[in-house]
Amino acid sequence: MARFKLTIEYDGTPFAGWQRQAGQMSVQEAVETAIERFCGEKVAIQAAGRTDSGVHALGQVVSFDLSGDRDPFRVREALNYHLKPHPVAVVEAEAVGDDFEARFSATARHYEYRILNRRARAALEAGRVWHVPMPLDADAMHAAAQMILGQHDFTTFRAAECQANSPIRTLDVLTVSRQADHIVVTAKARSFLHSQVRSMVGSLKLVGEGKWRPADFRAALDAKRRAACGPLAPPDGLYLTRVDY
Amino acid sequence: MARFKLTIEYDGTPFAGWQRQAGQMSVQEAVETAIERFCGEKVAIQAAGRTDSGVHALGQVVSFDLSGDRDPFRVREALNYHLKPHPVAVVEAEAVGDDFEARFSATARHYEYRILNRRARAALEAGRVWHVPMPLDADAMHAAAQMILGQHDFTTFRAAECQANSPIRTLDVLTVSRQADHIVVTAKARSFLHSQVRSMVGSLKLVGEGKWRPADFRAALDAKRRAACGPLAPPDGLYLTRVDY
Repeated sequence: MARFKLTIEYDGTPFAGWQRQAGQMSVQEAVETAIERFCGEKVAIQAAGRTDSGVHALGQVVSFDLSGDRDPFRVREALNYHLKPHPVAVVEAEAVGDDFEARFSATARHYEYRILNRRARAALEAGRVWHVPMPLDADAMHAAAQMILGQHDFTTFRAAECQANSPIRTLDVLTVSRQADHIVVTAKARSFLHSQVRSMVGSLKLVGEGKWRPADFRAALDAKRRAACGPLAPPDGLYLTRVDY
Repeated sequence: MARFKLTIEYDGTPFAGWQRQAGQMSVQEAVETAIERFCGEKVAIQAAGRTDSGVHALGQVVSFDLSGDRDPFRVREALNYHLKPHPVAVVEAEAVGDDFEARFSATARHYEYRILNRRARAALEAGRVWHVPMPLDADAMHAAAQMILGQHDFTTFRAAECQANSPIRTLDVLTVSRQADHIVVTAKARSFLHSQVRSMVGSLKLVGEGKWRPADFRAALDAKRRAACGPLAPPDGLYLTRVDY
């Protein structure tokens, strides 16, 4: 038996999200089906981040076992062949020790959220950004973001359906910067709650519009109530960019 | 009568190219139809660059006349409304003098060509890059590119169907640089021949693979024969990024 680690990229648009769901195509099903077509083995793969429907990945990491030894280069090539026509690509494949678990061995997850901040809607980036037509103050958003770094109860920024045992998380990085017509939010933590990044971005947008002061963003965190959160940002702009081990 | 200048962005994938063609949707038809829906006027618009099928634009510029005065802000908003669901967006609209012609007043056109240079095919960027799986030497490509700057007969890098009177053009900029898994080619000239950028990139790829030395790229130019050109690069990776006036 050999364990493999894959780094995968996908366009989340056509998928019901990472996780298998009856009657809807998930990224997990696409990858597991490609593995079965390649070697005939039915495997259950584990992912570092269970991305929601419409959320993209540049560096999702998954792990699974195959019986017998296989060359990681061949595994990558074969899976990329069998993944067609799904918009999923295996960027890297490595053999890893059997103590490696994509989900539980991760020491940090990195996300990026991209906002297109101009009057005209997205043409080339449709489905890949959140289009916000009203001007946003990225500096105010960044100042607000710095006020919630560290270990907190993130109940406010947690989806009602979140299954984590604890709402306590440690947010290491949350930055907001403007790059011409784009506003880019980056977030890093050991782990995130369900919809945490989209919840934080949705609230930061209120700061950017001037509807909230930066201190209101911190007050929303301190309220520890889901109702204190701003409207959830759409999945289109969210990318799982990297997982550290 | 008032003349308008629009800066537009589009995903070229679903279009037969910029120019109107019977039985196929063109970007020109999409924009002219939106203008007619907005104000009832049938206009013929002029574009700075007549992009081929599948070629994208971040900064295409077009001009056209409307009877009577209209607020450019309203023109942009109305066109963006009526352009749906086409992946075309009007980024800017301005009123200009009646001596402005998008095509003939342009002093420089800027293109960018994006190559995804890794084993795994594109997932998030499918249709937006040229996937080249074999490693390319960007430095050699850049060295070759520097050898054809200036005024030359570009017959080698000109499509057979090119309708320009003369094959003489002046190439101001042609750079090749690597950005992680991407190789980005930028080109600037007052004007380009039909398929000139894709022809040059297709030949530069041969340099990147080591099949041509940089001097062979210059020799291809000097041959002044279409047959001396490498295989045409696909439209997917090409973007009209900016037009100067």
